[in-house]
Amino acid sequence: MKYFYGLLMLLCITLSIHAQTAQEEIFENINLAGGNYYAYPTPSGKHTAPPKGYAPFYLSHYARHGSRFLINEEKAYNEPVRVLKAADKADVLTGAGKQILIITDSMANMARKRYGELTPVGVRQHQGIAERMYQDYPQIFRKKAHIDARSTIIIRCILSMTSQCLQLKELNPQLTFSYDASEHDMYYMNYSDDFFSAERKKNDKATKDLQRKFVHPERLMKVMFKDMNYVEEHIDSENLMIALFEMARNMQSHDTGLDLFSFFTKQECYDLWKRDNIRWYIRSAATPLSDGQLPFVEANLLENILNTADTCLTKKESSATLRFGHESCLLPLACLMELGNCGYQTDDLENLHEVWRAYKFFPMASNIQLVFYRHKKNPDILVKILLNEEEQMIPVESDMAPYYRWKDVEQYYRTKLDAGLKHLPAVEKMVADII
Amino acid sequence: MKYFYGLLMLLCITLSIHAQTAQEEIFENINLAGGNYYAYPTPSGKHTAPPKGYAPFYLSHYARHGSRFLINEEKAYNEPVRVLKAADKADVLTGAGKQILIITDSMANMARKRYGELTPVGVRQHQGIAERMYQDYPQIFRKKAHIDARSTIIIRCILSMTSQCLQLKELNPQLTFSYDASEHDMYYMNYSDDFFSAERKKNDKATKDLQRKFVHPERLMKVMFKDMNYVEEHIDSENLMIALFEMARNMQSHDTGLDLFSFFTKQECYDLWKRDNIRWYIRSAATPLSDGQLPFVEANLLENILNTADTCLTKKESSATLRFGHESCLLPLACLMELGNCGYQTDDLENLHEVWRAYKFFPMASNIQLVFYRHKKNPDILVKILLNEEEQMIPVESDMAPYYRWKDVEQYYRTKLDAGLKHLPAVEKMVADII
Repeated sequence: MKYFYGLLMLLCITLSIHAQTAQEEIFENINLAGGNYYAYPTPSGKHTAPPKGYAPFYLSHYARHGSRFLINEEKAYNEPVRVLKAADKADVLTGAGKQILIITDSMANMARKRYGELTPVGVRQHQGIAERMYQDYPQIFRKKAHIDARSTIIIRCILSMTSQCLQLKELNPQLTFSYDASEHDMYYMNYSDDFFSAERKKNDKATKDLQRKFVHPERLMKVMFKDMNYVEEHIDSENLMIALFEMARNMQSHDTGLDLFSFFTKQECYDLWKRDNIRWYIRSAATPLSDGQLPFVEANLLENILNTADTCLTKKESSATLRFGHESCLLPLACLMELGNCGYQTDDLENLHEVWRAYKFFPMASNIQLVFYRHKKNPDILVKILLNEEEQMIPVESDMAPYYRWKDVEQYYRTKLDAGLKHLPAVEKMVADII
Repeated sequence: MKYFYGLLMLLCITLSIHAQTAQEEIFENINLAGGNYYAYPTPSGKHTAPPKGYAPFYLSHYARHGSRFLINEEKAYNEPVRVLKAADKADVLTGAGKQILIITDSMANMARKRYGELTPVGVRQHQGIAERMYQDYPQIFRKKAHIDARSTIIIRCILSMTSQCLQLKELNPQLTFSYDASEHDMYYMNYSDDFFSAERKKNDKATKDLQRKFVHPERLMKVMFKDMNYVEEHIDSENLMIALFEMARNMQSHDTGLDLFSFFTKQECYDLWKRDNIRWYIRSAATPLSDGQLPFVEANLLENILNTADTCLTKKESSATLRFGHESCLLPLACLMELGNCGYQTDDLENLHEVWRAYKFFPMASNIQLVFYRHKKNPDILVKILLNEEEQMIPVESDMAPYYRWKDVEQYYRTKLDAGLKHLPAVEKMVADII
């Protein structure tokens, strides 16, 4: 009950700050409809000063790779191009249809043998994040401070790691680094198992009708095709619209200057984003459909953050732990940690977007940073938690939020992990098998 | 005929410099028996001064990843441990056998989920190479010189790349970098096709009896096992000896201080090395068994080196192209480029080691560097080619070797590629398919 009021309060604060509706936000900045493809925005730069006498000395993060190519060669690139080329051959494409064919074909060529790879936009995002970490917390990245960097075994994450490390090295050449990308760390860097996969599938199935409600391809088909009989006979118009929207929302990952959003109405972008937002919620967040259990897929990751902090906080020298992975880990981690309103629980999926908008949580290069502060005389270590470099409230008591006593935060998360994992014997077993 | 005499001369020079036999070298430094697992040695540091007025301005390399774990979980780690554990359970291991079990079991545990991964030893090798590149050619790595780094998609290569880049950045924080590890570059970074695979298989089969001649497990089995009947019934002694030697020769990739070479006699190490040396020769070098064609597997790589140089040599600013890959590419490339005596051709495999010793060519972190020099007034660009940082002779006329006129070198290699590829229609076709 206490947490319910806490949550309610946080929501009120959040809603009063972000007074705009999701629709208003998307209509104002169509790139937000990109959802998990949204290019990392410049953070506000707002920093609450720490309590007097406190200075940062350890930073721990989990960051998603930067902007990337789409992953699925066939579905994301080849299939829509093939469909449009066939239509062009049959001479049923309008001028707009031909334009869309040219753009999608260019993208498909550009993407050849680069599926899922980090783009130059993605590299710059991580350079920027590293630069701001250095500027915001110079006391951490000083002298020969040691940076331990870990990546999943996926190349776009490894190169994101390289980008941050090189940027930090440029700013302070004395820094020392260890770096790794190993199967050995995957049990916490990108955990998965059958329980969570099955839950996601089940939730997807349960919300299938709702998800279809947001896909209205009729107008777009009329814009692209001259002959509606051809569309009727040869085109899976829902699939085509979704594939084109997929490419449209990832255009911001490239420096091409090409655009596909303009072939959609803003309302269509908003509707398709809502569909996507629901999908991420029922797959990764604390949805009641899975009794709030889904975020526990990142139990190992949160435990690693806690344990590594406990080790690093005892060091005299300042240091940092940088982890590079995926939005499919970062989002449930943010929910598990209940950052801001990430942990929101609702059955009302149609109105989910009133509170829970994933584009706030997991754009490309999204990151959760825990910044630790110490005091020369006061033994209490404080922590501030950032999501995409914005200070976050968490449901832990504090008279100096966004700063929290680390012992309170640690206790809150450890208690939550202990309680949560009791309901997930499958996870416990698998973790035991792995370690 | 001209090349034959040239080659003969080079061989004489080489033999007079390296007057020691392979046996003497290995008996003196048992780690050389590691072959492709040999840890990168400290280079001699000998540098011939360039002709007057010439200064380096571009460096192009292909480097193998640094020291690594063995790749094959089952064959390299689990199988020998399983065999020894079963023998221990049957109480047939001697004291030495038990010691070997303890060591192999430790290594297997250490390697868990790290198969094929770069080790800290490997990281240091690339840091050292980068540091020496910087120190030896400060004119190249100055100001905001651009470094283009490319890796195969294998993680140990990507992290080797990270190691060199970070080291260079430490030495000159102004350097600018691009870095990539993409399927897109694999057609030249690690080419393979059916033609070369089939040739290797054929040559392996043709030399099977010769290869077996070098495996004598009888003594080792007596040292390890108390009961020869057990060995007779349960142990594939040739396989076991080879597996243990595999682990022994890779011990130098780790900082453990553990050793397995001491359970082999020096003569056994030498014999097993000879077997391995022959295997690499018939799989990657200019063996007459494949009409000297095998090195052409790196035709795309050599062409990339030539083409990239042609682009970079026109730049006003100095720059470097760093490539990170595998010994299975570097060795045929060294043969294709006829560095020193790499291109040696012989049918006499039993005496191959008198001239051709692969440990000279492809230790862990082995690398081929082309260093380009220019003159303010003389338009001739010169090149010096290094194998593992040692200056190499190539069969191109020059009155200032190890410096060569780039136009002569380029013409020699382009002519060779053109002629060689005519005999390899399969390669031409596949390259055309890929690009």
